[in-house]
Amino acid sequence: MIPRTIWREGEAIHLIDQTRLPTERQIVVCTDVERLCLAIRRLEVRGAPALGVAGGYGVALAAMLNRDPGRDAFLAAVTAAADALRATRPTAVNLGWGIDRVLAAISGSNTVGDAVSVAVEEADAIAREDEETCRRIGAHGAALIPDGARVLTHCNAGALACAAWGTALGVIRSAAEAGKSLSVTACETRPLLQGARLTAWELAEDGIAVRVIPDSAASFLMRRGEIDCVVVGADRITRDAVFNKVGTYMHAVSARHHNIPFYVAAPLSTFDPERSEAEVTIEERSADEIAVFNGRRTVPEGVRCTNLAFDATPLDLVTAIVTEEGVLRPPYRRMPGRRSI
Amino acid sequence: MIPRTIWREGEAIHLIDQTRLPTERQIVVCTDVERLCLAIRRLEVRGAPALGVAGGYGVALAAMLNRDPGRDAFLAAVTAAADALRATRPTAVNLGWGIDRVLAAISGSNTVGDAVSVAVEEADAIAREDEETCRRIGAHGAALIPDGARVLTHCNAGALACAAWGTALGVIRSAAEAGKSLSVTACETRPLLQGARLTAWELAEDGIAVRVIPDSAASFLMRRGEIDCVVVGADRITRDAVFNKVGTYMHAVSARHHNIPFYVAAPLSTFDPERSEAEVTIEERSADEIAVFNGRRTVPEGVRCTNLAFDATPLDLVTAIVTEEGVLRPPYRRMPGRRSI
Repeated sequence: MIPRTIWREGEAIHLIDQTRLPTERQIVVCTDVERLCLAIRRLEVRGAPALGVAGGYGVALAAMLNRDPGRDAFLAAVTAAADALRATRPTAVNLGWGIDRVLAAISGSNTVGDAVSVAVEEADAIAREDEETCRRIGAHGAALIPDGARVLTHCNAGALACAAWGTALGVIRSAAEAGKSLSVTACETRPLLQGARLTAWELAEDGIAVRVIPDSAASFLMRRGEIDCVVVGADRITRDAVFNKVGTYMHAVSARHHNIPFYVAAPLSTFDPERSEAEVTIEERSADEIAVFNGRRTVPEGVRCTNLAFDATPLDLVTAIVTEEGVLRPPYRRMPGRRSI
Repeated sequence: MIPRTIWREGEAIHLIDQTRLPTERQIVVCTDVERLCLAIRRLEVRGAPALGVAGGYGVALAAMLNRDPGRDAFLAAVTAAADALRATRPTAVNLGWGIDRVLAAISGSNTVGDAVSVAVEEADAIAREDEETCRRIGAHGAALIPDGARVLTHCNAGALACAAWGTALGVIRSAAEAGKSLSVTACETRPLLQGARLTAWELAEDGIAVRVIPDSAASFLMRRGEIDCVVVGADRITRDAVFNKVGTYMHAVSARHHNIPFYVAAPLSTFDPERSEAEVTIEERSADEIAVFNGRRTVPEGVRCTNLAFDATPLDLVTAIVTEEGVLRPPYRRMPGRRSI
């Protein structure tokens, strides 16, 4: 069974260092906001729902650490922490959602002491609700997965991407829990191999059949009739597109070409219907994530790499979106707003 | 300028160890057929046309090393060498083509001495003609590439895949030589990164603008309008499909979706019109090519990997095939037979 991904112990935020899995299981302890920001930037914690939890805990941590110097200094410190957290990664909407939810919760507090208590309660609630939300996504999504299905997934939208259970892998877990026989093809997910390292590890721990393939083989396996459906997570869903790990769009195009259902599983906190695809910044990460692996250079010195962390899949390629409130279908006219904060 | 990939010095076959590029430039010297077979299996030499040269040189090497023990022993040794070479890799048709061409050349010899001379001459001719063939492919293909084109390629169909110049990269080189301004997007090509390691290196050495991307980003870059055409090589072209490095099919599907031309560049020795896609064995290579990189395990122990070396792209997704004799267009009714041997 997969442990929790991110949790609070007193005035410290603990998280599993996902860059070291599957070979090492190491916990990062963040006792200040700077360390938590670093953990987010380094992808020690990643995955849209987990970033929502991290954002909430980051604000709560700033609140706990700044209870003494008075109201103005407290508010300045909390605001600065929120800004620093928000700047770590531009694409996943959940990060900002978690930050804003805790900020909104404390805005009505009369004293600094109240604000600290409220911040901690709200952040803990986000973490607690996240698992509940994933279980509900799983239950709705499981109904879409036939017994015996061979499911393709990309990156890691599992327990490690959330507080627990997972979104795309939550759907797979719930289907397996309901007694369905499933097998999963996990795309390794270059450059950082979250599929190979994290998804394969989670599913193997849970006893669900899984194999790993290079990302580029997915389309041909569809052609050979080895894939029955695709299930992925999301980092942001605008009114016209699903932003998710780079490679997701390629799978959607191939799924359409082969007439295979393409499902997205995501909590309502991922929706951003006020924005369109063109308004979202796609994070471009360091070339070295592609060019160097485990100390070995694979791209010649001086050659440029384009390392987009995400891509955008237009909604017309998406068969259905599974949320905690139910399954959305095209033409997605009644897209949910953000959960009220 | 790129050096030759594989060549003969007396009774030894020399080749650049492509598994060590771009960080090390090391020459493997094969003084017996076993070492050459190992070089082919390890991909120290790879690429369809280069394998044709290697096959020819392997038979010539066996001939040179077995000139003394008499006619029957000579023929037995040459036959055994041909069988061993042929068994190294099942998908590329050029390997068998090079072997068969030298075998056919010596079949008319009256003495062992004659047979040795003829084998060496024929193998040298294959290597010499390969560059000439690539130059002609380049000239025909260059006409398809507009000035300013942003070309996507996959794997390495360059000088390193041939004796020199290259097929897909030959087209790019010839277009650049003709004064066209080009930029190339090289897909890194998991699992063995021939695009990152070899294609980027070759093009950078030649001063052609190149960037490296994860394979899975190609489709999204097409969506963003950053790719004008795709040019790839081939390992075998049956009457209905192009076999090439896994990932090629995904690019063809995406190119069709985005209405982008998809070109294949290959010599006539790659054609196998007597066979259909279903009759060709796709080589499945070791899981460790995916699961372990530079000594670090990226897939949990015990999790299966599917490592197909190639995929098959149906001809209806191919805009044109560039050969040394000209450009073939759909519906490819008059597919060339193999070059006579």
